[in-house]
Amino acid sequence: MTAPWITYRPALKVLDCTVRDGGLINDHTFDDSFVRAIYEACVAAGIDYMEVGYKASRKLFNGGQFGVWKFCEEDDLRRVVGDNPTPLKLAAMADVGRVDWRTDILPKNQSVLDMIRVAFYAHQVSEAADMIRDAADKGYEVSANLMAVTTVTETEIDQVLDVLCQTPAAVLVVVDSYGALYAEQVELLVKKYLAAAKAVGKEVGFHAHNNQQLAFANTIEAIIQGSNYLDASMGGLGRGAGNCPMELLLSFLRNPKFRIRPLYKVIQERLLPLSRQVEWGPYVQYNITGQLNQHPRAAIAARAGEKRDDYIDFYDKLTGDI
Amino acid sequence: MTAPWITYRPALKVLDCTVRDGGLINDHTFDDSFVRAIYEACVAAGIDYMEVGYKASRKLFNGGQFGVWKFCEEDDLRRVVGDNPTPLKLAAMADVGRVDWRTDILPKNQSVLDMIRVAFYAHQVSEAADMIRDAADKGYEVSANLMAVTTVTETEIDQVLDVLCQTPAAVLVVVDSYGALYAEQVELLVKKYLAAAKAVGKEVGFHAHNNQQLAFANTIEAIIQGSNYLDASMGGLGRGAGNCPMELLLSFLRNPKFRIRPLYKVIQERLLPLSRQVEWGPYVQYNITGQLNQHPRAAIAARAGEKRDDYIDFYDKLTGDI
Repeated sequence: MTAPWITYRPALKVLDCTVRDGGLINDHTFDDSFVRAIYEACVAAGIDYMEVGYKASRKLFNGGQFGVWKFCEEDDLRRVVGDNPTPLKLAAMADVGRVDWRTDILPKNQSVLDMIRVAFYAHQVSEAADMIRDAADKGYEVSANLMAVTTVTETEIDQVLDVLCQTPAAVLVVVDSYGALYAEQVELLVKKYLAAAKAVGKEVGFHAHNNQQLAFANTIEAIIQGSNYLDASMGGLGRGAGNCPMELLLSFLRNPKFRIRPLYKVIQERLLPLSRQVEWGPYVQYNITGQLNQHPRAAIAARAGEKRDDYIDFYDKLTGDI
Repeated sequence: MTAPWITYRPALKVLDCTVRDGGLINDHTFDDSFVRAIYEACVAAGIDYMEVGYKASRKLFNGGQFGVWKFCEEDDLRRVVGDNPTPLKLAAMADVGRVDWRTDILPKNQSVLDMIRVAFYAHQVSEAADMIRDAADKGYEVSANLMAVTTVTETEIDQVLDVLCQTPAAVLVVVDSYGALYAEQVELLVKKYLAAAKAVGKEVGFHAHNNQQLAFANTIEAIIQGSNYLDASMGGLGRGAGNCPMELLLSFLRNPKFRIRPLYKVIQERLLPLSRQVEWGPYVQYNITGQLNQHPRAAIAARAGEKRDDYIDFYDKLTGDI
């Protein structure tokens, strides 16, 4: 009998997605001060990666409608992090179909970014593979993030993994976009991804959403099953129900390189005030879309409307049950 | 490969502890209308047991300081549930040392209660065994709830289980009073309890607290490991961080006898208004006491004071870290 929960696995890496996933709530309009506070907390806490936002096309998206973290241009990044003279690596997400990746993503030697996370739906895997190769050729670490994996059949997942294993992506991320997974499903998916990844020297990551209050628990399950790249966010900030709370995750990971106190500090000073302006967390409407394995957009709309406290109205609309 | 998360285990029983554990927030002063609403929701949802409150000594506790659900006297129970002409069974908790159990607990044929849950700390196991025998002799189903199991050594737990296995308790409950358990610990504890219980025809239960947002997840883990008696509460209502939310648990259990809609209805009509008067949930202070495996009393005091938003002050006080 062993007690692995009091020791640690050195290979585990943690990625903070506070600003990237949280940006989906406010159109990526965080001010520099907020982003700098998250950055400094990540550095102080010993976090491995911080995801700052998206790379996105200025042709497709109007800069007047979105904040700068939608685009993560070099000047904006460096205004906050300088040349990033720290061990913290910086990441940006790039969605297939929403970025002119050949030009928007600079060669690594011109960028303060370290990692590009390529996000895509299953049917977009071929362009994702092209983007992964392009980013790797430019000098970045690259992860492959198949979104909404709970809507993809196992045969299709196998096909996606087969394509990804032929790319230079270093990490294949299991992404529970809808917060729909239970622990046993996490186990099967991480095992499936690992079986493909390990054979070609890749790692497996995990990105949770907290619709059913399972983001932290499912992240633990992913760790137990062998996932070594874990996403989390300060105070769980993220679209809809939010993500795995970083302060819970780092406390669970017993690696002495991590420091918890800077997390509570930034949560107190930045996330708590933010929570009075924007909303995230596992509210009933998010419970329901998670249970139904649906995109949270209906729940987001309901929480923003006059019927935000009418759970029955929402339940009836989504289920047809009466 | 199987997908047990879409089928169900008929032996699983669910106990609603909304009024009992929630009563620890407000000195058991829920009005009849609230208790009746929970009762009706339990019946409509197909829940197996509802725990209405405590049996407690009127000599030890002043009736002026506590509401009637501290005592669960027959007149108060029947004013709400009548003779309870439903399949829902009613339970009350009895703490060792806080109840004159020989007289306070009536013979079953004089009571609308069906189950007595005997709660005790490890060093009180001998009186707990006496109480269990007394309640069983009087005609009740009985459960044995060793509290704060995360503070008890494995050798002591074995000793407790040895004593309990010689009693007529039908259910031995793993109780995570401090919300300190991670999934791997739940696995070990449920396996340990089951090894003792199964040999003498008993079942194992699980009672979670949500300090680390793991109450639902740990309850799932307990189910996977073979626990068949599960505690949960409407909206997660309970002392401090609260309990496993019933609406999440019943959605996970796929037994068609359960109905989810009545839960969302009572949450909307009763728990949401209550949440504007009293507080429960996995706030940062509860995260910290859970991580430190401590009683939540320091967190409860902090949340009630002027420094409720000063997480760093609380963290520093509890850890001495600076």
